[in-house]
Amino acid sequence: MQGAPLSDLKKNNKQKIRNNDEMSRFLNEPYRRLAPYTPGEQPQDMKYVKLNTNESPYPPSPGVIKALDEAAVERLRLYPDPECTVLREKLAKMYGVKPENIYLSNGSDDILNFAFMALSGGVVRFPNITYGFYPVFADLHRVPYRTIPLRKDFTIDPEDYCHPLDGECLRGAQQDLGGSAVGSDGMRDGMVVIANPNAPTGLTLSEADIRRITEANPDRVVLIDEAYVDFGAISCVPLTKEYENLLVVQTFSKSRSMAGARLGFAIADSELIADLNRIKYSTNPYNINRLTLAAAGAALDENDYYRENCELIQQTREKTAAELKNLGFEVLPSKANFLFAKSDRIGGGELYRQLKARGVLVRHFDNPLIEDYNRITIGSSHQMRIFLEKVGEILQTANEGGGHRNA
Amino acid sequence: MQGAPLSDLKKNNKQKIRNNDEMSRFLNEPYRRLAPYTPGEQPQDMKYVKLNTNESPYPPSPGVIKALDEAAVERLRLYPDPECTVLREKLAKMYGVKPENIYLSNGSDDILNFAFMALSGGVVRFPNITYGFYPVFADLHRVPYRTIPLRKDFTIDPEDYCHPLDGECLRGAQQDLGGSAVGSDGMRDGMVVIANPNAPTGLTLSEADIRRITEANPDRVVLIDEAYVDFGAISCVPLTKEYENLLVVQTFSKSRSMAGARLGFAIADSELIADLNRIKYSTNPYNINRLTLAAAGAALDENDYYRENCELIQQTREKTAAELKNLGFEVLPSKANFLFAKSDRIGGGELYRQLKARGVLVRHFDNPLIEDYNRITIGSSHQMRIFLEKVGEILQTANEGGGHRNA
Repeated sequence: MQGAPLSDLKKNNKQKIRNNDEMSRFLNEPYRRLAPYTPGEQPQDMKYVKLNTNESPYPPSPGVIKALDEAAVERLRLYPDPECTVLREKLAKMYGVKPENIYLSNGSDDILNFAFMALSGGVVRFPNITYGFYPVFADLHRVPYRTIPLRKDFTIDPEDYCHPLDGECLRGAQQDLGGSAVGSDGMRDGMVVIANPNAPTGLTLSEADIRRITEANPDRVVLIDEAYVDFGAISCVPLTKEYENLLVVQTFSKSRSMAGARLGFAIADSELIADLNRIKYSTNPYNINRLTLAAAGAALDENDYYRENCELIQQTREKTAAELKNLGFEVLPSKANFLFAKSDRIGGGELYRQLKARGVLVRHFDNPLIEDYNRITIGSSHQMRIFLEKVGEILQTANEGGGHRNA
Repeated sequence: MQGAPLSDLKKNNKQKIRNNDEMSRFLNEPYRRLAPYTPGEQPQDMKYVKLNTNESPYPPSPGVIKALDEAAVERLRLYPDPECTVLREKLAKMYGVKPENIYLSNGSDDILNFAFMALSGGVVRFPNITYGFYPVFADLHRVPYRTIPLRKDFTIDPEDYCHPLDGECLRGAQQDLGGSAVGSDGMRDGMVVIANPNAPTGLTLSEADIRRITEANPDRVVLIDEAYVDFGAISCVPLTKEYENLLVVQTFSKSRSMAGARLGFAIADSELIADLNRIKYSTNPYNINRLTLAAAGAALDENDYYRENCELIQQTREKTAAELKNLGFEVLPSKANFLFAKSDRIGGGELYRQLKARGVLVRHFDNPLIEDYNRITIGSSHQMRIFLEKVGEILQTANEGGGHRNA
């Protein structure tokens, strides 16, 4: 569910307030104004070619199924290992770090939540178009934040994260909060959060850019959200050995076909990992269940299977991008398992609605900055063929009817 | 892991500070003093008859295994239903409430955490001997609290929770916090938290007592933690239809043999459930994975299997209690899946250590108020026979050596 930009969040909040503004008189004051995140739609009314939430089109590998049986029969009645020892060792080996550099969580959202809760350090910065959950975490924990505009081509300017926020920006963030979460020591710059590849654009920063941002913020955490890194981008995991302030977050939800199993992980200096464990052991020590642990362990043992799937998804992505361009789309050069594209003939919202009416779900965001675009998860070749066929049909109808672009 | 009393927590904290005081310079100030919870030991050095963490001795039912296969093959790549619709409907039917009265979580600790975070309302009250995680949640969220001593016989006096805390108590709670979490409106009484049956005593309050406490606190949440309710106690779930301030928390970890699957649930007025959802959707909307959802759904379809297991555990409990009494133990009249017992011949810590040396793990707490006792999870008849044999051996040796009671 990565990728909802801020305006989508606002739209969702509106839905929330409209449909779900129920609360008790017992809810503590700061939480009464809280606007929680609403996930992408999961309609049940018909069978869709579901391309709206960036899941893998391929099932988990055979060993996972076997592992689940063993975990269920023998051990489900027992608490899981709260230290996730076996899985941390496997991941450490795979990523060339030590087990104490790895933290596992019930989905990567849990790590992001803990980071906003306990590692914010001041006014947090992230792009104005990125994963829509970041401002929700900030609001939940009453952490001040500033969103930094992307460049016009939707790329991130690393320089924006290499210099302290000026006094006006800091005061602005303070005002957003009504001063409530601001200590007597005044405001200061805090954590930097960057999704790389970014969502919903799929665009990347280079390793050199990440290095520069990390070095420019020696006293602040730099959190790099690599949920989509396995589809052709360069991971900055190796940099965690050089920089104690770099926190890299990944997930099993995308490249490892396990959105349904809920497993995320962080790689960082052991002190930052200890911080995450400190919060975990104060909230939910058994935060990962045995079934997920077993499935993930089996998945790592069959890593080639997933690497091949990621290759396949990249090939399908490039082919789909080329075909969309042939249909007149502008397509951002994505390194993720989705494309972000706009048509020269039909508005983003209209294309989304017409695709949905034809049984294809993509994700559209109301944010005026990106309302012309749709985010299209890369499914199987077969799914993308259906998608492209329906797009072709819709464009033809649009042409015949004079186009919906200015309707 | 229910059942660690406060002094055990303190002991664990000491261990934490001794073994695990690592933290980064980035950890936010309030969390630097945080003393997280440490779960019971999970030693790997030999094969124990494991009776120390209140898990079920019986495996999940056959349908669970089947369900896991289906969930894994078909759907693991997809995000789970964040609303847990199917499972909430099944639970609602079983407990005679509506789906909107049910909240599901990644273990019941998640619910307790949210309640301390967002429903505390003022100075929280709970017994001085109870689940050791309550003060950890309070500290995490900087919520003031007061612990209320049990009666000498370890029962809870309901009257202690029916009258406002006096000014001195409120000021004391305020001082604990250094005033940091205290609003300008001054201190007031907050949430009441009671485990029923209580841990590690296994003693219960009656439905009438819960009703009285709930009625006496109309403007405060009364949270009843029913983790152990299925082993012969009376649930107060029916009262949630009468009282909008009553929040009942249960778990699949004990009576449904799924500690390894991590699933807890709350039953309450729909407004309180909406509050929990508000926090959930601001932290981790997909907090329950598909495998656990599938396993739990299958388990509810085979509820008779679990009811029979609970019957069996109660029978084994009563038989074990009788045999312990024959061996000179004082045994509290437990309604949970554990016994809390002390010998007239050997100290609690010594018995714990000698049992462990003989391959039997029970749980001992260093709190001076209960240091003579051990908490013994009810396992299978076979496991309890081994336990009783080892106890017999230890007592005989103790008698021959003049006893360790005063050693």
